[in-house]
Parts: sequence; structure tokens; C-alpha cells
Amino acid sequence: MATVLVLFDSRASLVRELARAVCEGIALVPGADAHSRDVEEARPDELLRCDALVLGSANWTGVTGRLKTWLDESGDLWESGELAGKPGAAFAAGWSPHGGLEATLLQLVHLILGHGMLFLGLPWSERMRRSGSYYGATAVAVLTNDDREQARALGARVAALAVRLAS
Amino acid sequence: MATVLVLFDSRASLVRELARAVCEGIALVPGADAHSRDVEEARPDELLRCDALVLGSANWTGVTGRLKTWLDESGDLWESGELAGKPGAAFAAGWSPHGGLEATLLQLVHLILGHGMLFLGLPWSERMRRSGSYYGATAVAVLTNDDREQARALGARVAALAVRLAS
Amino acid sequence: MATVLVLFDSRASLVRELARAVCEGIALVPGADAHSRDVEEARPDELLRCDALVLGSANWTGVTGRLKTWLDESGDLWESGELAGKPGAAFAAGWSPHGGLEATLLQLVHLILGHGMLFLGLPWSERMRRSGSYYGATAVAVLTNDDREQARALGARVAALAVRLAS
Amino acid sequence: MATVLVLFDSRASLVRELARAVCEGIALVPGADAHSRDVEEARPDELLRCDALVLGSANWTGVTGRLKTWLDESGDLWESGELAGKPGAAFAAGWSPHGGLEATLLQLVHLILGHGMLFLGLPWSERMRRSGSYYGATAVAVLTNDDREQARALGARVAALAVRLAS
Repeated sequence: MATVLVLFDSRASLVRELARAVCEGIALVPGADAHSRDVEEARPDELLRCDALVLGSANWTGVTGRLKTWLDESGDLWESGELAGKPGAAFAAGWSPHGGLEATLLQLVHLILGHGMLFLGLPWSERMRRSGSYYGATAVAVLTNDDREQARALGARVAALAVRLAS
Repeated sequence: MATVLVLFDSRASLVRELARAVCEGIALVPGADAHSRDVEEARPDELLRCDALVLGSANWTGVTGRLKTWLDESGDLWESGELAGKPGAAFAAGWSPHGGLEATLLQLVHLILGHGMLFLGLPWSERMRRSGSYYGATAVAVLTNDDREQARALGARVAALAVRLAS
Repeated sequence: MATVLVLFDSRASLVRELARAVCEGIALVPGADAHSRDVEEARPDELLRCDALVLGSANWTGVTGRLKTWLDESGDLWESGELAGKPGAAFAAGWSPHGGLEATLLQLVHLILGHGMLFLGLPWSERMRRSGSYYGATAVAVLTNDDREQARALGARVAALAVRLAS
Repeated sequence: MATVLVLFDSRASLVRELARAVCEGIALVPGADAHSRDVEEARPDELLRCDALVLGSANWTGVTGRLKTWLDESGDLWESGELAGKPGAAFAAGWSPHGGLEATLLQLVHLILGHGMLFLGLPWSERMRRSGSYYGATAVAVLTNDDREQARALGARVAALAVRLAS
């Protein structure tokens, strides 16, 4: 089984809802297993043992300090390279469509690449006219059906690659 | 008079509409004068003589090659520093709310800062829940009233600073 | 007097050394006063009362969680707008020349713009071939004389604008 | 055979030298074939037929207008999705260590993700203290041995994934 860790800061309930949709997408892929963890309960060894990582944050003018601090204190995996070469992805939620939502995702992209991981976002589809980004899944104010579908697509995408690379 | 050059690539008509709203905002400021130029007709000496610069682009997976090429060929102002210390701002329009609209604005931010200019975006307001970014004015698919108001606010903001610094 | 708050996370001593050089630059400007604060000792009301803000961080795959958490907990100034329209700038230090140093600065740029502030970096100069960025002052591994001169130039630049806008 | 297209704007000879080193890395991987193309001679169908893409640009305050224009005019692959799911990577060269080199790489990251591709940079290694980025391979002013080794590592990394995914 390939384990996909979905690690997020749940301060905003929207982020938790997006995380749930990402996990639904992961569950669609045979051989993949979703581990969903709020940073308040996550342990560093879960980061160490995953086959893929999906990071989620509220847009608090970028990634929340709480999520970043958790990652800062999770060990020196960026240096030791345990996550290098594994797939990574991102999602973010906030109150405004262009008020830093992509910027928050971009900070998550940076954290994924800082571990030497492969980054996957969402490819273009007609649904991106309403939700989602090349950098990952999104939601603004409320979770729409389009948001949920994009988050599922992202979960399935990262899980399929994790299964393939873990075999 | 402080001259604010609004320089944009008009391939998408939305960009032209946003440019018009930015100019309306500039016109509200006593002592400021808006010069609106499509890159197809703009001349490098207009860049040289402005007191402030507002750059606009369609979201073509980032700034259009046409706008970037125009700037590449407009001389070495980044090196000679004619624009350094003057105010700059940005606007962008596209088909999807998070499909690179902020990324396009961020590339414009980079071009402004690459000239040593001061960068101004939009401050938070309730309207940012519907339109606009810390990086500048926005529009998606059609120009809404909120888009127009944010673009006017941006034009007025950059013009007011240009007048103040030119005095 | 215009007060320029230099707020940084000192985990890396290089950041503290850069902060000192920024303050030296501020002190060169008549009418400007530098307040240098490590996030471990800074109080939110100092943020509220400043006329300009210079943020500094170590490159810990982006801004440190400690600095971001301090800002997250400093109140809702981004919402109430007390800092809007005031000048802001950034500096960063780390161990590698392109291993996220600009990315860290870019996250500081985002925090400055998220408050609706004006952002100033460094304009091009021959010295940028050795140190500094359009996004702010830099240092890698050790503080060189070029790093110090760029940090001073940045401090003087933001202080001069703060004095001008405060008058 | 998995074909890795190395597409770059050669205006700066450093970019051409980095491209050569990337190709050397690709050639080290059994089953991978490097196609090196300057944008002046590249044809859109080469983009369509590749199994992986490595984009390179000089730092001209971001990606050169010439490279961006070529991509703008290469068809609507971002929309039709021919490149989606394939590996992509980036390299950049310029005159200053932090004067937009990462920003240029970031624009290439965006172009790769805008096609729905997987993005790979360089993982941390001691060599990143001297050259290279989480976003790709780098060179400043002259090509050093470290630059060459990082570019080779990047080429080998993207080629190995391309071979694996093409099988």
C-alpha cells in the first residue's frame, strides 16, 4: 500500500472540508491509503513514513505560522532527504478569490520542493474556470461542488503517482 | 502634472476594460494625468518620461510574451535606473479565478521591482472578498462592478503617491 | 521623527547582523529612527506605532514559523489597515545562494503587501552582482562587505521614504 | 526511448552551457534521449512529441520575452493536455546571485505546472551551498564545476522519471 499523508492546519473549517475531499480522491485509487492529520495531532514520524504528501493551509496572508512551525520542528528531512523523489501536492482555502490564495499555494509548493519532492498540481479543465489552480485545490468562503471535485481529482492524481512510484 | 503610464497588452478585451477603470481612478486625483497605451502602439520614450507605471496583462500562463518582449526591447532602464523610486502597480485578467491570475500579477510585481520602483497593490477591504488582490486589480471572464471599483481604487492610489513624490 | 521598525527572527546570527546593517542605513537619514526588535522580545503595539517596517528572516525553506506565528498573533492590522500606505522592505539570510533565499524574501514581500504597505527593494547596481535582490538585502553563510552595504542602502531607502511620507 | 526536450533561449551563452550539462545528465540514463533546442530553431511539434520537458532561460528580469512568445505561439497544449502528467524541470542563468534568478526559475515552474506536468527541482545536497536551487539548475556569470554537476544531476533526475513513466 502507498500511504498518502494529508497534513493540514484546520483553523478554518474549509481547509478540513477540502482535506476530506482530497482523501476521497485518494481512496478511489487501488493500492493507496489516505492518512489525514491535523497539525495539532500529527507526529513527525508520520511524515517520515509516508509515500506522498499533500499539504493544506488556510490563507492567513500565506501559510499559517502553526503549520510552518510544525514543519520547522519535524526534523531535518529536507536535509536527510527521506521525502526526496516522492510526490507532493497542495490545497488552500480562504475568504477572497485572489487575495493570496495562489500565494499560499505557492508557499506550499516551495515546502514540497524544499524536500526534493515531485510537485503535482491540477491540469487545466473547464472546471478550473470555477475552482482549482495549477498549484492545487482551492475553496473560497464555502466549499462548492466544483471545489470538491477538484480536490478529489488532486487526491486521485497524487495517489496514482504514489502507487506507481512505490511499486 | 504627474503622468501615470498605464501600459498593457490588450489581446483580451477584459484587460483593456480594466485599464480604462484604472485610468478613471487616476483621473480622480488632482495633478495626475493618465496615459493609456497598448503595447502595440506604445513607444519606449513614454516609459522613460512617466512618473508612475501601471502594467497590465492577460493571464496567458503568466505575462504575455508580447508584453515581456516589448519591455525587453524598451532599453536598459532597469540598469540606468530612470524609473527607480517611482511608484508602480499591476492588473491582470483571465478566465479562471485561481488559475494563475495571482501568478501573472506576481510577474508584473517582479517587473516593477526590477526597475527599482516602489510597488503598491490593493489594501484589504470587504470588496476583496469579491475582486482584487494585494498584488493589484483583477477580473475573471467579465468585468464586474467590484472589479471596476478595485481598479479605480488602484489607479487613484498610485496617482496620489505619484503626485506626492513628484512635488 | 519617523520610526522604522526592523523586526526579525534572530535564530541565525546572520539575520541579526543584517538587521544591524539595515539599522545603520536608517540612522543615516535625518528624521528617521530605527527600532530593532527580535520577534522574541517584540510587542504588537510596536508594529502598530511604526512609520515603516522592515521584516527579516532566516531562510528556513521560507520564512520561519516563529516569525510567521508572531505576525499571525499580532492582531488584525491587515484588516484594520493601520499599516496601509506605509513603506515596507525585507531581508533574508541563509546557507545557499539560490536555495530559497529569494523565495523567503518573496514571502516577506507578500506579508508587507498583505498589510497594504508600499514595498521597496533594492534597485540594480553593480553591487547586485555580488549581493542583494530586487526584493531586499541578502547574506549567504557569512556577512560580506557588499551584504552590509546593500543592507545599509535598503535601510536608508526605506527611511527616506518614511520621513517623506510622514511629513 | 523516452525523449527529453531541453528547450532554451540561448541569448546568454551561459544558458547554452547549462543546457549542454543538462543533456549530459540525460545521456547518463539508459533509455533516455536528449533533444536540445534553442527557441530560434525549435518547432512546436517537438514539444508535442516529448516525454519530458526541461525549460531554460536567461534571467532578463524573469523569463525572456522570446521564450515566452515561442511558448505562447506553440499551440494550446495547456488546454488540450498533451503534456499533462509528464515530468518537467527548469534552469536559469544570469549576472547576479539573488537578482531574480529564483524568480526566473519560478516563472519556468509556473509554465511547467500550467501544462499540468509534474515538476522536479534539485533536492538538498552540500553542493547547493554553492549552486542550484529547489527550482532547478543555476549559473551566475560563469559556469562553475558545481553548476555543471547540478545541471547534470537535474538532467539525470528528470530523465530517470521520464523513462519510468514512459514504460
